[in-house]
Amino acid sequence: MSFHAYAAHAKKGALVPFVYEPEPLGPHDVEVRISHCGICHSDVHLVDGDWGVGTYPMVPGHEIVGTVAALGPEVRQLQVGQRVGVGWQRGACLACELCNAGEENLCSESEDTCVDHHGGFADRIRLDGRFAFPLPDALASENAAPLLCAGVTVYSPLRRWVRPPMRVGVVGIGGLGHLALQFARAMGCEVTALSSTADKEPESRSFGAHRFLATGEPKALRSAASTLDFILSTVYVPHDWTGLLRALRPNGVLCFVGAPAEPLKLPIGAILEGQKTVTASAIGGRPAIREMLDFAARHGVAAKTHVRPLAKADAAFDEVRKGRARYRIVLAA
Amino acid sequence: MSFHAYAAHAKKGALVPFVYEPEPLGPHDVEVRISHCGICHSDVHLVDGDWGVGTYPMVPGHEIVGTVAALGPEVRQLQVGQRVGVGWQRGACLACELCNAGEENLCSESEDTCVDHHGGFADRIRLDGRFAFPLPDALASENAAPLLCAGVTVYSPLRRWVRPPMRVGVVGIGGLGHLALQFARAMGCEVTALSSTADKEPESRSFGAHRFLATGEPKALRSAASTLDFILSTVYVPHDWTGLLRALRPNGVLCFVGAPAEPLKLPIGAILEGQKTVTASAIGGRPAIREMLDFAARHGVAAKTHVRPLAKADAAFDEVRKGRARYRIVLAA
Repeated sequence: MSFHAYAAHAKKGALVPFVYEPEPLGPHDVEVRISHCGICHSDVHLVDGDWGVGTYPMVPGHEIVGTVAALGPEVRQLQVGQRVGVGWQRGACLACELCNAGEENLCSESEDTCVDHHGGFADRIRLDGRFAFPLPDALASENAAPLLCAGVTVYSPLRRWVRPPMRVGVVGIGGLGHLALQFARAMGCEVTALSSTADKEPESRSFGAHRFLATGEPKALRSAASTLDFILSTVYVPHDWTGLLRALRPNGVLCFVGAPAEPLKLPIGAILEGQKTVTASAIGGRPAIREMLDFAARHGVAAKTHVRPLAKADAAFDEVRKGRARYRIVLAA
Repeated sequence: MSFHAYAAHAKKGALVPFVYEPEPLGPHDVEVRISHCGICHSDVHLVDGDWGVGTYPMVPGHEIVGTVAALGPEVRQLQVGQRVGVGWQRGACLACELCNAGEENLCSESEDTCVDHHGGFADRIRLDGRFAFPLPDALASENAAPLLCAGVTVYSPLRRWVRPPMRVGVVGIGGLGHLALQFARAMGCEVTALSSTADKEPESRSFGAHRFLATGEPKALRSAASTLDFILSTVYVPHDWTGLLRALRPNGVLCFVGAPAEPLKLPIGAILEGQKTVTASAIGGRPAIREMLDFAARHGVAAKTHVRPLAKADAAFDEVRKGRARYRIVLAA
């Protein structure tokens, strides 16, 4: 049986129909019939070769929702027909110290859903069933798909570093940021949205922000000095990092989930004064994903999405590449 | 009544006898008759004008041990004749959120013992009695003096970030580092000393190090990749920071207590991979100081010191300036 996907055949290539024969279903594997797949900026970076990883033909897509279509003989925890989600990670050793601690995302044998494997811009996918997560009924598939990557990417550091009623700032109000605002608000934090221009203020407030700072206006960040306990930076472009550090209160934490290309130039004095911390976070382990899905269902956290048919994957991909998604584009079967 | 001290009258000036009239004893103040005062590298930076703070004539010294000689009318917690220690901080507002949380070291109204005040290279000092700490009997004065600054500087970040049996690395085996090795060992950690050359290995092991890495040998740090949970950097000179980050395990923390003059150039990738954290720590609050003194007394943590008479302050200061102290020089009355 063949799987029908959309693939780029070269760096920056168009997404065109692509048929492939899947690997045989392993003992712990599941086959998922895909109903929805979000388009993440990481997919663009992969296809465009920005990170120098992955092989072509490349089927992107790692924010997958679908139903279980087949089970390997060892799979006990899932049933055919059950709705599941799949994110950035499709496998790990499940035996090392980190996997045992529920930090499979840090396992040195981690496998990525759409790096050197065919991803979710397809009708079906096969992967280790221990990385397919049952979805709470309260989550609509099109709004849940982006939770599997963007959602856990912002939830995991909030879960690690934040407790109510901390003052949380979110830099960059896009696919990641609009979810971070919702999670931080639902966690009982005081939430500040930081965006370069003022045009995202009304929507930021609708996502839960109590306060909005237009960081492109020189005074705005200065006026916020020493007001935040935790800043989550979701942007890929350089920023006034020293200004952000100054916006932190003593013992404050600046956490990167986007990776700016330029190295951060960090005067130690800027972190020594007030004992600031700079850190980063990469997706999340299986316990964090399960917890995040439950938390999102309970608190009504959902990605704001526009749905496009899978057959229009290439045009939809270009919308994301050009930064036009408000806030996530999801492909539907 | 005059106080007799040693002061520098200009940037990089010699320490010469200096007599001054103290401020009147305020309601919460104590007068301490000084028996011992450690010489810290910070004193050298202050006298030499490296930090551009402080006024001349400048009496350095902020690792003070002595006995209470007089009490302001509101002081209830101390008695005349009682042995106390004084560190880097001599006052704070004691009313703000940070002071209330026992983080007086981060108070915006913090006052430094020997910046714009006359410090401990003297026969006496007056300061807020709430920053004079009773010393456990088990601590010898000459070995306890350096605990008041160097001790809490390394103890406070260990207390915040480390729990047994974490793998702790200490970079720089000097006044700070030799105490950090002892504290980390007593906390039940696996302890690694990192020093540029191999000559400090035997003493590092005597201070509690289980392992020694000569970081000047190119292979040494590479061979230690992904072996440490926490690295405390006590050095003032630039180092192979990326190599140190690589020596951290996933979720590992690199903490600066010394401040290298050059900005840290930090590729976000180096912290994103493995979710590393870079942070800094500045002395410690009053609860940390009290806890550190008790902990040191219980576990026999003591600075290795050489005693010089206060009358030879200038020559002793020069030993520290030239990096010849092994590991701390303490002036005695």
